[in-house]
Amino acid sequence: MSSKKKLIQPRTLKGFRDYLPDVMMPREELINTARRVYRSYGFAPIDTPTLEYAEILLGKGSDETDRQMYRFEDHGKRDVGMRFDLTVPLARFAAQHIGELGTPFKRYHIATVWRGENTQRGRYREFMQCDFDTIGTKSIVADIETALVIHDLMLAIGFDGFTVRVNNRQVLSGLLEKLQLVENSTEILRALDKLAKIGAEKVAAEMQETAGASAEQAAQVLKLAEIGGSTDEILSALDRLVAGSEQGEMGVGQLRELTAATAAAGVPAERLQIDVSIARGLDYYTGTIFETFLGELPGIGSVCSGGRYNDLASLYTNQELPGIGASLGLDRLLAAMEELGKIEARTTPAEVFIPYFDQTSLPQYLQIAATLRAAGFNVELYPDAKKLGQQLKYADRRGFKVAIVAGDRELAENKCQVKDLKTGDTTEASLAGGAKELIAGISQILRPTA
Amino acid sequence: MSSKKKLIQPRTLKGFRDYLPDVMMPREELINTARRVYRSYGFAPIDTPTLEYAEILLGKGSDETDRQMYRFEDHGKRDVGMRFDLTVPLARFAAQHIGELGTPFKRYHIATVWRGENTQRGRYREFMQCDFDTIGTKSIVADIETALVIHDLMLAIGFDGFTVRVNNRQVLSGLLEKLQLVENSTEILRALDKLAKIGAEKVAAEMQETAGASAEQAAQVLKLAEIGGSTDEILSALDRLVAGSEQGEMGVGQLRELTAATAAAGVPAERLQIDVSIARGLDYYTGTIFETFLGELPGIGSVCSGGRYNDLASLYTNQELPGIGASLGLDRLLAAMEELGKIEARTTPAEVFIPYFDQTSLPQYLQIAATLRAAGFNVELYPDAKKLGQQLKYADRRGFKVAIVAGDRELAENKCQVKDLKTGDTTEASLAGGAKELIAGISQILRPTA
Repeated sequence: MSSKKKLIQPRTLKGFRDYLPDVMMPREELINTARRVYRSYGFAPIDTPTLEYAEILLGKGSDETDRQMYRFEDHGKRDVGMRFDLTVPLARFAAQHIGELGTPFKRYHIATVWRGENTQRGRYREFMQCDFDTIGTKSIVADIETALVIHDLMLAIGFDGFTVRVNNRQVLSGLLEKLQLVENSTEILRALDKLAKIGAEKVAAEMQETAGASAEQAAQVLKLAEIGGSTDEILSALDRLVAGSEQGEMGVGQLRELTAATAAAGVPAERLQIDVSIARGLDYYTGTIFETFLGELPGIGSVCSGGRYNDLASLYTNQELPGIGASLGLDRLLAAMEELGKIEARTTPAEVFIPYFDQTSLPQYLQIAATLRAAGFNVELYPDAKKLGQQLKYADRRGFKVAIVAGDRELAENKCQVKDLKTGDTTEASLAGGAKELIAGISQILRPTA
Repeated sequence: MSSKKKLIQPRTLKGFRDYLPDVMMPREELINTARRVYRSYGFAPIDTPTLEYAEILLGKGSDETDRQMYRFEDHGKRDVGMRFDLTVPLARFAAQHIGELGTPFKRYHIATVWRGENTQRGRYREFMQCDFDTIGTKSIVADIETALVIHDLMLAIGFDGFTVRVNNRQVLSGLLEKLQLVENSTEILRALDKLAKIGAEKVAAEMQETAGASAEQAAQVLKLAEIGGSTDEILSALDRLVAGSEQGEMGVGQLRELTAATAAAGVPAERLQIDVSIARGLDYYTGTIFETFLGELPGIGSVCSGGRYNDLASLYTNQELPGIGASLGLDRLLAAMEELGKIEARTTPAEVFIPYFDQTSLPQYLQIAATLRAAGFNVELYPDAKKLGQQLKYADRRGFKVAIVAGDRELAENKCQVKDLKTGDTTEASLAGGAKELIAGISQILRPTA
């Protein structure tokens, strides 16, 4: 038909994005790595619906998440919303199923969430969260394992210069209790949070002004933030600071136990450090808290954070469900990996490319491809008998590593050429005997001995 | 607090469901298998937004999908909808990015879709699709590869008694062209579709009634449905039937080429059969079409279907984008695997369970766990020092395979006990020398030589 029809403009909504292969492949790999590490500690996968009754989602979040929630009336006139995190659905899920699941319950949940945020801040309205939690135990073993999972995860992703920073909310609570500042803890923490930005003097002034602290009290709180040194030195200083507060002593005791255990499990001290300056989610966390920073890019903030909470699902059940968990910041990590050159620019998951010369050789191409797939390679056969140069340009643009060039002459001799697409080097390989020589040649190019 | 607060009832929306670990683990495994096979043929992953402008989604689907679509006004007063399949988003995606992507473009897309369907039919309103497509080439190589992917996928999932049934829309179109019945093809096909149910005589009558076919024409069409035998016999019969119709001859030629090539690639004839009775998506497919049936459970219908189309994205671009693809029916396959006893009843991804005796041995438990994880096992350490019987009951209920029992006495001798949780058999293993003996003992239980 030559009549011009009116086209619909192909476009995505503001704050949403397509993932093309070059972006999707590292995402998939990162998710697979997280899954593998979570599973290696016995965390099991779950999933929950994207849509929930609005009342389930509304109560638990902040005013901000309530406002940002995608909410509408469904076909049955129900008031529904799209999940904005994985914590609220976990709470609902646990309240509903914990009898069947039993405790301790260790789960991971890797799924998309939605927030109608202001995109001016460079945020997306659709993003993925990657959480793991241990529910139904107060044992410090769960805290220790959470630290180990974060540690193993960062290593498995390919980082080594990172630090898991650990603190315990009870240390600060104990100190405030000792100083009789518990009732003003929100104001104290708000002031303390500004330390790096405005300095000790101004923070002390703010504490006196907004929290009604005395100069002496403010100085005591600021002492906490000055604590540094080796793990042993920090623990000793904390011992002195919280002495007399049951809560504070318990917090320091847990930090001592956690650092000793991770050291015993082989985590070097520089990768797991006590940092009394981290506070996180004031209303939610009650014990151990974690943040994780990249040595090469500390400025992007924590890439894996979490902590212990007393009661996960109190909105939905009277059963007390203590737990601990953390969340991997997928998008932030991917941005960091990109910036650090840790992401290969490829648009194909296949390493091996087979150009297509003529139709009569198709059975051979298919046989070579099948043999190589059985040997564990990902193989693409070009579908059209275009000029070799054109086919190789396609292969190069996608990021294939090796081309198996097999024209009539080569096939007649039961041979092919193995072309390293990076160096351009070409060698000949026999196809006889299960193509062992070809497989060895490809392996040589893909995994060269250093 | 002892005051009773009002709880929110923890529940999911009608037509939605939670995936608990026992259901989620086989799902994840199936998805991983699909991903692995797709990648082995050079298909790359993509993702698209859950929410699209309603105008993008509305035009392409049927009246039914339009009506079932979750549609609402977003925070910016935009008319938006949740995707109800992955084909419409692919068309929009291809129209938008094909210049950057280049052709041929091979993608897989494994993602959730939503339809506000009538749940009385046992359908869910949220489910996952698992599609792969090759876009931008008319080459028969893409058809052949699609057949091979389906074949490899079914084998990789663990089926061998399956049949990929293949047909070509041009065969039937050619026959109708030859019989001058093209204009009534919809009515002809509708009648033909009832063959198994109402028999040849009534079908012939219906063709004459609704499609204005003569008795002779109806008999000719019915001849097609009678064709059977070996691949060669079917192809010869088809040759005779469509002789003189260019379109029909082309269709038979493609079937001949496809079956010859898959045979050359090692696919046994019983696993890929021509079946002239399959028709699929009358308005959409234009060439090769596929359906896949399980030998043990043919009644559940096709578990992997697809075909070739002439023009994917004509709603959004004037660029012609021919392609071919198929979709794995995840939920149907999982139901079949469940029914055939192919799914293990477990709720943990870990094989190895370490009971916890006392706190002073915690460093050793952590070391054993770390050593076993480094050896590739998934290991869970119980977090509380409960009675051994209680811990083993927990391990048994979750489906762990092996327990590593290490009390004070064993650890003092640098030993542990390896308990096969299925048989109850227990052996002793040394922890010395990187715990080689322990690793061998566990491997023995997990992968016994038959």
